[in-house]
Amino acid sequence: MGTGSVGQAYASKFITLGYEVMMGTRNVLEKLADSARDVYGNPPFSAWLSANKSVKLGTFQEAALFGEIILNATMGAKSLEALKMADVKNLNGKILIDVSNPLDFSKGLPPSLLPELSNTNSLGEEIQKTFPDLRVVKTQNTMWNGLMINPAMLNGGDHTTFICGNSPEAKEAVMEILKSFGWQEGNILDLGDISSARGTEMYLPLWLRIWGATGNGAFNIKIVSLK
Amino acid sequence: MGTGSVGQAYASKFITLGYEVMMGTRNVLEKLADSARDVYGNPPFSAWLSANKSVKLGTFQEAALFGEIILNATMGAKSLEALKMADVKNLNGKILIDVSNPLDFSKGLPPSLLPELSNTNSLGEEIQKTFPDLRVVKTQNTMWNGLMINPAMLNGGDHTTFICGNSPEAKEAVMEILKSFGWQEGNILDLGDISSARGTEMYLPLWLRIWGATGNGAFNIKIVSLK
Repeated sequence: MGTGSVGQAYASKFITLGYEVMMGTRNVLEKLADSARDVYGNPPFSAWLSANKSVKLGTFQEAALFGEIILNATMGAKSLEALKMADVKNLNGKILIDVSNPLDFSKGLPPSLLPELSNTNSLGEEIQKTFPDLRVVKTQNTMWNGLMINPAMLNGGDHTTFICGNSPEAKEAVMEILKSFGWQEGNILDLGDISSARGTEMYLPLWLRIWGATGNGAFNIKIVSLK
Repeated sequence: MGTGSVGQAYASKFITLGYEVMMGTRNVLEKLADSARDVYGNPPFSAWLSANKSVKLGTFQEAALFGEIILNATMGAKSLEALKMADVKNLNGKILIDVSNPLDFSKGLPPSLLPELSNTNSLGEEIQKTFPDLRVVKTQNTMWNGLMINPAMLNGGDHTTFICGNSPEAKEAVMEILKSFGWQEGNILDLGDISSARGTEMYLPLWLRIWGATGNGAFNIKIVSLK
């Protein structure tokens, strides 16, 4: 779900790993006709798709129907709407890997978080509440997309990613996917149930400030602790 | 400002480093008479003070008048009230090292952040707005107090602390203090002006979830980045 740079990074990686991938978007024809660069200056989606011909493109509904595992890489403010367009009957019983953040660009830059989806709530929780039979696993929302799918590019792969969700089996399945990306098991920290997404999503304002101060998004945090 | 475990950790460290220290509290006689353990099971303040006789105790006002540098180690929800009791004339022109967090215990555990002091605001900013002639430096609110004053106990001292504030001179002075605690210059990351406190304070919910998941507060984050 989502055709931006995060969705593209995952789609390419999943294709490399032998998965079949359909990317979901609101309106397929509009998406293919859009020739503008995105807000970050990236080429239009159609150019990326031409270079990644084995990736299918469909509506949110078609992609959700197609997928055994669904990945939410839409803008956080639009995620619930996109999932509703996907239709609950195409989601029930499936795993949703939720890597999105409820960023609020309406109050200036750097963005804040959507008040109704932060502090005493989170986007991960709100998705889980809205779709009780979807198995939401929040992960990888705490870093630049290049690192999500290629942790080895930084510090020999020795840095931390978090995982939260209510279903131990779904978390286990997602951990296997993260390991296939190169994440070391000891660097995948299970924070508990989906309410822990409050923590990982509220880290984003710090991430944005570090990025702003250093001018370098290719960083992550590593948890170091006294044994 | 503040006589809890954070204030105690700093007071002991500053005494060791040769500073004169007066701790500020709301009511000196009540504080000395209180024989109860705190919510974390720590001994009463009077027991700590008996073992740290070179530390003076005064009201918030007396401590602010006494101090050339002021440290805010009060509960975040009470910090503005404590600083108002200290009296603006005892604060103006001085440096305030603000290590507090605007935790909200009213909505269950783990605590959330006070809505009016988070997301599009922060406690650090609110203190700066309330006392424009105080030079607020937000730092060290992102870790367990034992690490603040003794970074070397973990990972050879190689982990990250943040600093934010509007006055470069005040930040420079506080960086010197952090270095005297053992912080390595390359691990003190200047995030910019005091609005960056939004980032460091909003990290707390993640800190609390990591603590909850691991049962170990003696951890910190280290920023690792691609050069």
